[in-house]
Amino acid sequence: MVKNSLGREFPAHLFGRELRPYGDPFSASPKGAAVGRPLRRVNPGDNKLLGSLREAIEASGLTDGMTIGTHHHLRNGDALLNAVVKEIAAMGIRDITIAGSSVHPVHEALIPYIRDGVVTRIECGVNGGISRMVSAGELDLPIITRTHGGRARAMSTGELRVDVAFVAAPTADPYGNICASRGPSACGVVGYAHSDADYAHCVVAVTDNLVPYPAHPISIPQTKVDYVVQVESLGDPSKIVSTTTRMTSDPLALQIAKYAAAVVDAAGLLENGFSFQTGAGGASLAVAANVRDMLRSRGLTGSFGAGGITGYFVEMLEEGLLEALFDVQSFDLKAAASAGRNAAHIEMGADMYANPFNSGCVVNNLDCVILGAREIDVSFNVNVNTESDGKLSGNTGGHADTAAGAKLAIVVAPSIRARLPIIRDQVTTVSTPGETIDAVVTERGVALNTKYEHIGSILRRRGVPVGSIESLRDEVYGITGVPRPIRFSDRIVGLIEYRDGTITDVIRQVAL
Amino acid sequence: MVKNSLGREFPAHLFGRELRPYGDPFSASPKGAAVGRPLRRVNPGDNKLLGSLREAIEASGLTDGMTIGTHHHLRNGDALLNAVVKEIAAMGIRDITIAGSSVHPVHEALIPYIRDGVVTRIECGVNGGISRMVSAGELDLPIITRTHGGRARAMSTGELRVDVAFVAAPTADPYGNICASRGPSACGVVGYAHSDADYAHCVVAVTDNLVPYPAHPISIPQTKVDYVVQVESLGDPSKIVSTTTRMTSDPLALQIAKYAAAVVDAAGLLENGFSFQTGAGGASLAVAANVRDMLRSRGLTGSFGAGGITGYFVEMLEEGLLEALFDVQSFDLKAAASAGRNAAHIEMGADMYANPFNSGCVVNNLDCVILGAREIDVSFNVNVNTESDGKLSGNTGGHADTAAGAKLAIVVAPSIRARLPIIRDQVTTVSTPGETIDAVVTERGVALNTKYEHIGSILRRRGVPVGSIESLRDEVYGITGVPRPIRFSDRIVGLIEYRDGTITDVIRQVAL
Repeated sequence: MVKNSLGREFPAHLFGRELRPYGDPFSASPKGAAVGRPLRRVNPGDNKLLGSLREAIEASGLTDGMTIGTHHHLRNGDALLNAVVKEIAAMGIRDITIAGSSVHPVHEALIPYIRDGVVTRIECGVNGGISRMVSAGELDLPIITRTHGGRARAMSTGELRVDVAFVAAPTADPYGNICASRGPSACGVVGYAHSDADYAHCVVAVTDNLVPYPAHPISIPQTKVDYVVQVESLGDPSKIVSTTTRMTSDPLALQIAKYAAAVVDAAGLLENGFSFQTGAGGASLAVAANVRDMLRSRGLTGSFGAGGITGYFVEMLEEGLLEALFDVQSFDLKAAASAGRNAAHIEMGADMYANPFNSGCVVNNLDCVILGAREIDVSFNVNVNTESDGKLSGNTGGHADTAAGAKLAIVVAPSIRARLPIIRDQVTTVSTPGETIDAVVTERGVALNTKYEHIGSILRRRGVPVGSIESLRDEVYGITGVPRPIRFSDRIVGLIEYRDGTITDVIRQVAL
Repeated sequence: MVKNSLGREFPAHLFGRELRPYGDPFSASPKGAAVGRPLRRVNPGDNKLLGSLREAIEASGLTDGMTIGTHHHLRNGDALLNAVVKEIAAMGIRDITIAGSSVHPVHEALIPYIRDGVVTRIECGVNGGISRMVSAGELDLPIITRTHGGRARAMSTGELRVDVAFVAAPTADPYGNICASRGPSACGVVGYAHSDADYAHCVVAVTDNLVPYPAHPISIPQTKVDYVVQVESLGDPSKIVSTTTRMTSDPLALQIAKYAAAVVDAAGLLENGFSFQTGAGGASLAVAANVRDMLRSRGLTGSFGAGGITGYFVEMLEEGLLEALFDVQSFDLKAAASAGRNAAHIEMGADMYANPFNSGCVVNNLDCVILGAREIDVSFNVNVNTESDGKLSGNTGGHADTAAGAKLAIVVAPSIRARLPIIRDQVTTVSTPGETIDAVVTERGVALNTKYEHIGSILRRRGVPVGSIESLRDEVYGITGVPRPIRFSDRIVGLIEYRDGTITDVIRQVAL
């Protein structure tokens, strides 16, 4: 057993893999060079357009034991991963690893194939029924949850080898240029698929909108796509991107947002060139609204918004409050439309977004990120991977990446959810190390980590309650009671990989 | 000695390198994977902006015997390569290889450094005084001339390792995003530098227009740039791009263009979706004008224009006669401005343009290319690398790449230049194999290679003189006389590498 710097213990080796313990956010350094994509010879007249998914799987050389890559830009509207695995099963191929960027509730259709041994390993965050399966110990091997930057890193170093990537392409031409911002399944950008295109041994573009050459604007170029397949539909457009991302009217979330905006302001970061990332959640958007108002009223121009992009950020771009957007995933229709229209709305791959092992990723330039949490502990560690009952639920996404990158990483969360304490002694699972979190903001007030302790007095003067994280925990425990410890078995069902490839935590099966 | 399929003889090995003989345009296939760029660790707060070229050279780790990469988008206005070599010399570093995309007459300032042993090898096409030096045998090692696609290929396979790339960046931010379409040295795109950014072991962006983060539209992203240096000037803007590219009024060129357009038409390629490349020469542009008029009058819409882009092609895009432009190098101000403005004006790297060893390059989709020539022989082989006196002069560029890719490769040239026959028994140097050339068009008429022999009757019916290439040669020889053979020594001063890495020819020193 080894213990990492967060105090989490796990075996030094597991199923032949060395589990390197997490040490700190910035020291782990890579050696050598990135892996290179296979060299090809494609001559004039060679045809890439195949007649069916089956033909593409045959052409790709996919066999037992290999790994497939997919992306989750079509979110819960995605029909492709289910169709691919169904075809793989029909062809009698077994023991496949799914190493996508995420798996959603719609992919519960894969459960029978997991039970049958068609899919035996999962290397990505999971949701819904599959996460319950994993928690119940139904997979022989633990799933591996990576950050968005970590997945790009693992592909670049060769730790994750994707044999065949199936890229859902909202628009494609017969020579493989992929455009994400057009077509019935338009999702704006396909940032998570960029690394698949860069590193997978075979790349198959699957589209429901085949257009004459050249499809553009180009999200992924022809030089990285081996085969193209046309299908009737990539999924359910109504579930691919949200129609709109709505601001919350929940008074608790608005209170949290008000406090969070005060932290941003007190930290002294609101100047010309301010850069900013939020998620699409209600409180996050409410913080964005407050920040927008501050920029506007002070006559300031921000630099860029990054990450998953919402219509909210598009409005700030179009109003001139931001110079540019770096978009790895468009969250709503307005963002998806802007991606193909605004030159300053820049599609970025997950590598550019957050890989710590390239020559400098975008999160390194973030002034501020607003993050969510399932749990936060008194060391500021954050859990986004498990419920408080110990069951797997959710991906790390860009959480740990942006927390490490941003000058000011603020976690916003209600202090209590469904009568459970969100601020607690220890998080069930460490997704993001506390040393990369600068402030925790709840409706009860703000707790500041060491780097920003000095702004406490400014906040108090402005009427924002500020206390220690321990006092916040005590206050919450006073209402909810001290949570009972969860009983875990020894069996490890999931690994939480930090962006640099070390292990911040493992997820054990809950004891019956 | 080995003899290639073009009948050219050379040693099987030269200075430790195996010279693989050219066989045919499409068979040579690569093995394995591309090389990968070095992995890095760049943390938030790390600084990439250095104070001077010297600091960047020091930081890059450049030492004796290493290779530097540069690009020639600033053409004869470039001041960077001279400045870099001057600084390298001042630092006492020696035995450097220059492996840029091309060297221009402005770089004659390098001659003293070549004589001094600061620069000992050149792996790119050369012009002006340096080409005369090479021809005179002043370099110990032969220069290596690669096609644009071949340079990208050689970098991807690792045959060409660039240790430090110095990328002239018309605009850059302190974190290394490079934008080619803005700034006083704007050159539109920097397509030849993309492979340097992908493969060089260290990438230095040098800019005379440092802007706040993020510089955009992004030609080369921050993830591939290690250091940024600000200099006062990258060069002479008046020589970077032409003010305008002008159509010829020379009756001979116009006659050639008329015949060439008739060949395009007779070949049956002028349909919706027609794709097209020409150079910036007078006759080429005149062909483009004829093609434009045919598209317009027939109500057709072409697909794309590719290669080095002129204002002429921008007008066709903006008029709706072309759907898109793939631009590896902007030839004039109008093209450079369009690159930053028109979404359908797509910047492509040399890899995407023409590398035969990726999953499919743009030249593979060309319907027609119009090419120039210094000499053409009765096997349709073309020489663009040497003068008829045997002296080195000029780069292969995209000549051999597009000839191999396009369905119809037309060479346009006057039959006689300066009393020398352009159509001849044997070209002095084979730059582009005849089997990839479909038609030769001179002011005397057209010679068709095998694949297009069947359109001879159509052309004749339309009043275009068509004859065999031998009869064209005989007609020309009748005027100029048979050219006297050049006396060469055995010493090899240059290698002509085909796009797949085989050798189409060598250049020997002219005997005194």
